[in-house]
Amino acid sequence: MLEKLKQEVLDANKMLPEYKLVTFTWGNVSGIDRQSGLVVIKPSGVPYETMTRDDLVVLDLDGNIVEGHLNPSSDAPTHLEIYKAFKNIGGVVHTHSNWATCWAQSCRDIPAYGTTHADFFYGSVPCTRPLTKQEVESAYEKETGKVIVETFNTRGIDPEAITGVVVNKHGPFSWGKDAAEAVHNAVVLEAVSNMAYHTELINHGCTPIENYLLKKHYLRKHGPNSYYGQK
Amino acid sequence: MLEKLKQEVLDANKMLPEYKLVTFTWGNVSGIDRQSGLVVIKPSGVPYETMTRDDLVVLDLDGNIVEGHLNPSSDAPTHLEIYKAFKNIGGVVHTHSNWATCWAQSCRDIPAYGTTHADFFYGSVPCTRPLTKQEVESAYEKETGKVIVETFNTRGIDPEAITGVVVNKHGPFSWGKDAAEAVHNAVVLEAVSNMAYHTELINHGCTPIENYLLKKHYLRKHGPNSYYGQK
Amino acid sequence: MLEKLKQEVLDANKMLPEYKLVTFTWGNVSGIDRQSGLVVIKPSGVPYETMTRDDLVVLDLDGNIVEGHLNPSSDAPTHLEIYKAFKNIGGVVHTHSNWATCWAQSCRDIPAYGTTHADFFYGSVPCTRPLTKQEVESAYEKETGKVIVETFNTRGIDPEAITGVVVNKHGPFSWGKDAAEAVHNAVVLEAVSNMAYHTELINHGCTPIENYLLKKHYLRKHGPNSYYGQK
Amino acid sequence: MLEKLKQEVLDANKMLPEYKLVTFTWGNVSGIDRQSGLVVIKPSGVPYETMTRDDLVVLDLDGNIVEGHLNPSSDAPTHLEIYKAFKNIGGVVHTHSNWATCWAQSCRDIPAYGTTHADFFYGSVPCTRPLTKQEVESAYEKETGKVIVETFNTRGIDPEAITGVVVNKHGPFSWGKDAAEAVHNAVVLEAVSNMAYHTELINHGCTPIENYLLKKHYLRKHGPNSYYGQK
Repeated sequence: MLEKLKQEVLDANKMLPEYKLVTFTWGNVSGIDRQSGLVVIKPSGVPYETMTRDDLVVLDLDGNIVEGHLNPSSDAPTHLEIYKAFKNIGGVVHTHSNWATCWAQSCRDIPAYGTTHADFFYGSVPCTRPLTKQEVESAYEKETGKVIVETFNTRGIDPEAITGVVVNKHGPFSWGKDAAEAVHNAVVLEAVSNMAYHTELINHGCTPIENYLLKKHYLRKHGPNSYYGQK
Repeated sequence: MLEKLKQEVLDANKMLPEYKLVTFTWGNVSGIDRQSGLVVIKPSGVPYETMTRDDLVVLDLDGNIVEGHLNPSSDAPTHLEIYKAFKNIGGVVHTHSNWATCWAQSCRDIPAYGTTHADFFYGSVPCTRPLTKQEVESAYEKETGKVIVETFNTRGIDPEAITGVVVNKHGPFSWGKDAAEAVHNAVVLEAVSNMAYHTELINHGCTPIENYLLKKHYLRKHGPNSYYGQK
Repeated sequence: MLEKLKQEVLDANKMLPEYKLVTFTWGNVSGIDRQSGLVVIKPSGVPYETMTRDDLVVLDLDGNIVEGHLNPSSDAPTHLEIYKAFKNIGGVVHTHSNWATCWAQSCRDIPAYGTTHADFFYGSVPCTRPLTKQEVESAYEKETGKVIVETFNTRGIDPEAITGVVVNKHGPFSWGKDAAEAVHNAVVLEAVSNMAYHTELINHGCTPIENYLLKKHYLRKHGPNSYYGQK
Repeated sequence: MLEKLKQEVLDANKMLPEYKLVTFTWGNVSGIDRQSGLVVIKPSGVPYETMTRDDLVVLDLDGNIVEGHLNPSSDAPTHLEIYKAFKNIGGVVHTHSNWATCWAQSCRDIPAYGTTHADFFYGSVPCTRPLTKQEVESAYEKETGKVIVETFNTRGIDPEAITGVVVNKHGPFSWGKDAAEAVHNAVVLEAVSNMAYHTELINHGCTPIENYLLKKHYLRKHGPNSYYGQK
């Protein structure tokens, strides 16, 4: 079932080592079929190199295994919460990519310091609050998804304009209209995390990009008046 | 038309990923034929790997498309302003290369801290002032070119002695006598940006290179009395 | 003798350059056969590329050469002390990998700043005290092993829950149930050393991960209630 | 003439890009035949990839070209001064390798922060004083060699125990018993420059390695009582 989606999710997972976003198996990509509400996700702890389409796991949005002979990624409940709350997205990726994880561990939002950031994220990329002891000890991975959604809701951030987050003391999650775009956005998040780090260290009083420049660059690439690329 | 120039511009664009100056399609190279006043430039958002000579776009200096089936780089108007003001150059490159972009985001000139810098840039590489709201909202890419030219004019910098700039909150532009040399200079700018960053962090009170040493190294490689390399 | 163990140790040594943990020959892996009490270790100063199974050296726990035509790694006495004290481990690796060595040279424990660390190390990775002049001048490599063991004993650290250490002014040692796992843990130590460095620099008042989150992540992957990966 | 030496010097030059010590042609290696007093050196500005044995230039110690159809490296006079003063060395290398150049640009000695450093350099690697205006404007490259020699003489440093230097605001020179060892030592200098930088940033009050540990590690690998490697 869902062979086309499986192929997309498989390809997207195999891009993680390609883009140097992962050490060992520290990352996972999923994709959703919005019609059936079924999610295809990487199996837990399986190397990207040898993974096949048949190793992928199909889940419903309650986390029940619909198809698959392996355990799904232990982060699956986080993916599911994201899909349930952010209705227009089609793919989710989680990694421990180096630079984004440093911001997560520093418990800091990633400021929009330049147009590279503005080309893809319409404002700073948020860092969640820490999970409470109770949240961690009850349904940890599900609560991780809920705190991501809470961050966007309480701070009034549009998850289609800012397609990623860093989870406090943990690492980044990214998403997009499909699995491939989610990985694309994870690469961008890693690049701007790297640049933001060095920008601060070379200029401690550094301020974010002017709002009108942020807007200009974001809207050059997104929305009805975008003019970057080909038709 | 301009098949030789197109080949040079194609080759130069393909060097960007080779030299690790770009992520995805975040960079573009152009070249100019001074006789006809026509500019050949990368199409917008097209991957370097699959780009062919026929994908390149030919523009006149007013930005009219003279030949080509694709949209030119959205940064084309910036390239054109640079060609119009700096009469002796033949190639322009724009990237979001990591280290130079960090200096751009920090809104700081890149100081000449050593002979690596002095071998290619006869003084610090300037950072432009920020664009105003009006400049960004009117003709953004053209105004970006104009602020680059303004920086060189008002500060009395010779664009043939300092062949690059970082645009405030954006990233680097480099140029040279042709497209290949522009890319060469972009590689050098990235290397000296990297070194200048680390030089400051390991010695906070660090001062630029002595003027007589700057002069010696620059003139070893440039001008009538240069003696580096072969005849 | 011990041909299977030799192959494992050979393979593990050849992983060191693969994972970019070594410059030249600056690293060595060993494995132990607990039944016979014999240790197989890399010969001293031999390149990984050309090393064969027959180049490996077999030692008893007193350091006597049981088999082999080459000198064992000069760090062999350190390996032996670790095997004698930490009874359940089967492999040891020593490198001068860049980031872990920086922490060693800084004479600092590596704090657990995030879940990447918590997934593998159940607390901060300790840095030993400096060796005394007498220890260095008497039996240096053996004393290095003894100060590692002392660090774990006096600080009450379980060497199976924290499978690595940085030796003061020197570099990292890691271990695991076999040679391959020891190398795996050396890769993880290098990755978390990198992240911890940048985490501190981007947030100087940064605090370690909450204890309940450390525990959750560590026990997701280790012990009877672990649920990461496949059965 | 000197075909064997030429091959060694050619091979050593080709190792520079291999070890990532150079951008473009920013580095050169030479070797000396002590019997004839003739030096073989890289030609100026020639790429490593296409360089052949016949492109190398043979000089006497006064800088006269004895054989060769190309200009020698513009740094040749520096190499010659080093050979004249340090009688037991057989190879010299100069690069603008990233980390060592950062220390040069910072005008700082590279402290011996750990055993990686101590394994190869018996104390901190010195940074020269700046050249005076007169020195730069008269015989710049020769004066660069003289200030290197002066640094070792006035500070009482043994050039066989510390086989490298960073030239103020410029970059590193390394040497060894032959061209290959000079390149080996340049790789080590780059590695310890990298580590020393990060060691300081993670621990600002960091002190150098204890003298007895420096001595132990250096003499493990050098001199009559060394015991590292094979006989």
